[in-house]
Amino acid sequence: MAKDQKKQPRPKAETPKGFRDYFGADVTERKEMLDRIAEVYHRHGFDPLETSAVETVEALGKFLPDVDRPNAGVFAWQEEAVPGGGSGDWLALRYDLTAPLARVAAQFRNDLPSPYRRYAMGPVWRNEKPGPGRFRQFYQCDADTVGSASVAADAEICGMLADALEGAGIERGDYIVRLNNRKVLNGVMEAAEVGADQAEDVLRQIDKFDKVGEAGVRQLLTTGRKDESGAEIEGVGLSDAQAAPVLAFLTSKGADNAATLENLRKAVGASAIGAEGVDELAQIADMLAAMGKGEDRIVIDPSIVRGLGYYTGPVFEAELTFEILDEKGRKRQFGSVAGGGRYDGLVERFTGQKVPATGLSIGVDRLLAALRAKGLAGSEAVGPVVVTVMDRDRMGDYQAMAAELRNAGIRAEVYLGNPKNFGNQLKYADKRLSPVAIIQGGDEAARGVVQVKDLILGAKIAAEASHEEWKAQPAQTEVPRADLVAEVRRILG
Amino acid sequence: MAKDQKKQPRPKAETPKGFRDYFGADVTERKEMLDRIAEVYHRHGFDPLETSAVETVEALGKFLPDVDRPNAGVFAWQEEAVPGGGSGDWLALRYDLTAPLARVAAQFRNDLPSPYRRYAMGPVWRNEKPGPGRFRQFYQCDADTVGSASVAADAEICGMLADALEGAGIERGDYIVRLNNRKVLNGVMEAAEVGADQAEDVLRQIDKFDKVGEAGVRQLLTTGRKDESGAEIEGVGLSDAQAAPVLAFLTSKGADNAATLENLRKAVGASAIGAEGVDELAQIADMLAAMGKGEDRIVIDPSIVRGLGYYTGPVFEAELTFEILDEKGRKRQFGSVAGGGRYDGLVERFTGQKVPATGLSIGVDRLLAALRAKGLAGSEAVGPVVVTVMDRDRMGDYQAMAAELRNAGIRAEVYLGNPKNFGNQLKYADKRLSPVAIIQGGDEAARGVVQVKDLILGAKIAAEASHEEWKAQPAQTEVPRADLVAEVRRILG
Repeated sequence: MAKDQKKQPRPKAETPKGFRDYFGADVTERKEMLDRIAEVYHRHGFDPLETSAVETVEALGKFLPDVDRPNAGVFAWQEEAVPGGGSGDWLALRYDLTAPLARVAAQFRNDLPSPYRRYAMGPVWRNEKPGPGRFRQFYQCDADTVGSASVAADAEICGMLADALEGAGIERGDYIVRLNNRKVLNGVMEAAEVGADQAEDVLRQIDKFDKVGEAGVRQLLTTGRKDESGAEIEGVGLSDAQAAPVLAFLTSKGADNAATLENLRKAVGASAIGAEGVDELAQIADMLAAMGKGEDRIVIDPSIVRGLGYYTGPVFEAELTFEILDEKGRKRQFGSVAGGGRYDGLVERFTGQKVPATGLSIGVDRLLAALRAKGLAGSEAVGPVVVTVMDRDRMGDYQAMAAELRNAGIRAEVYLGNPKNFGNQLKYADKRLSPVAIIQGGDEAARGVVQVKDLILGAKIAAEASHEEWKAQPAQTEVPRADLVAEVRRILG
Repeated sequence: MAKDQKKQPRPKAETPKGFRDYFGADVTERKEMLDRIAEVYHRHGFDPLETSAVETVEALGKFLPDVDRPNAGVFAWQEEAVPGGGSGDWLALRYDLTAPLARVAAQFRNDLPSPYRRYAMGPVWRNEKPGPGRFRQFYQCDADTVGSASVAADAEICGMLADALEGAGIERGDYIVRLNNRKVLNGVMEAAEVGADQAEDVLRQIDKFDKVGEAGVRQLLTTGRKDESGAEIEGVGLSDAQAAPVLAFLTSKGADNAATLENLRKAVGASAIGAEGVDELAQIADMLAAMGKGEDRIVIDPSIVRGLGYYTGPVFEAELTFEILDEKGRKRQFGSVAGGGRYDGLVERFTGQKVPATGLSIGVDRLLAALRAKGLAGSEAVGPVVVTVMDRDRMGDYQAMAAELRNAGIRAEVYLGNPKNFGNQLKYADKRLSPVAIIQGGDEAARGVVQVKDLILGAKIAAEASHEEWKAQPAQTEVPRADLVAEVRRILG
């Protein structure tokens, strides 16, 4: 037996590559943020849904098996085909929270209310090459309305996103939700007489607007341009007349929503779908105003074009507008933390029936990072009061002290390591970020007192005071045993 | 394109076999219970830990690959070996929360405080044949102390379990934690001169004590017995003198802990390990008494033998003592909802060093079922106030009403389905368990009023009142638009 064990090498104690563990405040801060967001979703009538982490590859859909092992992008495995047991199906970990919603909306369509408002929070998994800041398991936090074609649903989701950001702790003025509509872009394409074959190319150039500006995009849409290195980039080949509506669209943001809408109406020209898109934006803006959500919080901004390929109607993106210092100490805007929009075909894959849906997704890690950068991530990590052990035969006395503190709602624990070296106990309390240590030797026990040591004040004195002052130890006080809880309470403030 | 789609059959919208989805109150009730338990753990100085759902099969350990596909019991898959990407390792979903703790305790042993108190809550996955009430993904809720050999750690965990049950909502008197010690059993085996080769057989017979009683176990340990069908069951072959200490152990529970401990001392005879075990139980009982945890909550009970094979020292099990009705309407005790104990070798597999540990695990689904059976599962599901849509052109007005209610902290939503059929809107409100519906047609809007319909009272009247009374509709009141929030508040109480 011992021989066998020797032969087997010890396993490596390592988190799998691309995965990570969360300790202490990492867990509680995220949880508190998600709790605050869930409260907002709930108040808006959304119900929680927690689907299984595992789906059939067939139901996930995006990764239908066209090779022997359909694991491109997902973690997948094949069940053993066992009578009464495994089905031989390919199973996989969900890669987002939308695909499982589609499955649930189809599976339970006769039981769920329609429209169905649901929120979901939880980990998703991506079988991608891990990199710095790129993990293969991460949290998503979504809210979707399934079964409503009304732009009122889009307006509600959009307004809820603003409330969720404020609920999480982002102050008004520190964020902006920008709103656009895929239908307006479709109208612009129609006005520009861009065919289906060219649409992809045009979209790609539009995406470069932030980088190369109006003149640059004009060149890219028509005859091409030279990039910084001097290399020729081929143009899409539109005429100047064709490029005009596209450029009008990209530069249509006015001083307010009314001006922007007027510019957009011009950009879509005679296109019916374009006019419908502009009307929808106007309706959403009116509804948001009725809800008390002004343009300082949610604004129509046609330059939001990312993701337009995926969505079919209104789209939006939330950006944090305050500056933070990047890793090189340069100021930069925090950027996007959430987005969403209207999409079709959610349930259609399963049932053949079109079911309209609209939803939002918050980038949990990014929003939490933003809250941390602003010092708003919640509960500062405070360790427990540590009851030290001077006399191991009186463990019961020490546990009674911890129990009294806990019953008073104070976080407390007895030192459970080897009590021989008292210095180690204080080092432990230090590592635990303990605010207070309790000390009672045999002498104090006989006199019915305890020593209560203010570790935060003690650390301050040790850092700032002279040796003589430090020796006076004003951070440690002796109180009657019966006053233990009261004295700890006094120190904790 | 359309042709291709036709060829591909529609995917089935099904939760994979053995998995399930949680809706609405199922999610929030479990969450609230776990939040209350986490608060207790935190107050005892335990820190949260959330490990990745995925581990290397090597680190999980129990299922080391001895076949081509090491997936017996776990969901496992092999990474593709790609330069800079997948490692070719076998990965798997965790099957419990203890194996990941072992990996973390080894991996971060230089950074974590020692002893390390941690709690963990989350799903685990088992690749087992699904059955009624047996799922392949379920929640666990653990707390462990790693790195303390002191029985003070066991006493703390044991006491914390009682507090956790009360924190979750189980009343004192409705549960009992029973405490035993593996070392006492080892001492009994020594006193009975049972060798290592027979120990397994003896343990198996001991487990039948509940079923066949003292006389039955005596037969099973010695010459054998007939079961109900008349079939002969072979005995282990101990002499009566050998069986005596084992039976003394099983029947050692006295009127109180002191009496039980005295009986146990006799049962272990001259065994040193047995005496150590009894001493440990005595110390734990003293410490629990010092913490204010009496024998009505935590009691020494040597009949707790389940799991003794796995644990190495003190073990305990929490049982709910109230009666519920089973599926056949018969009264029965609710039974076990949590257990734990001391175990060795946790980190040793990774580092070669023995690290003592003790912990508890609460059966999340069982405890939640118990709370539901007692009507204590928390927030009763209350749906949102539904603002109905009488005039789709005034969607902004309806959304303003919902926004006002939400701003006042009231859960509310606008009906987002097709508003044409008003009956459907009330049916929807019914399905949503809405307490109140808001109605404002063009006439009401012109007069500056809204109709507020008390749906709960309305349902009561419809069920109990005569047709005439019902027609009077006292459950619906007209109030000035400005009084909307106040009126809804009045109805919600």
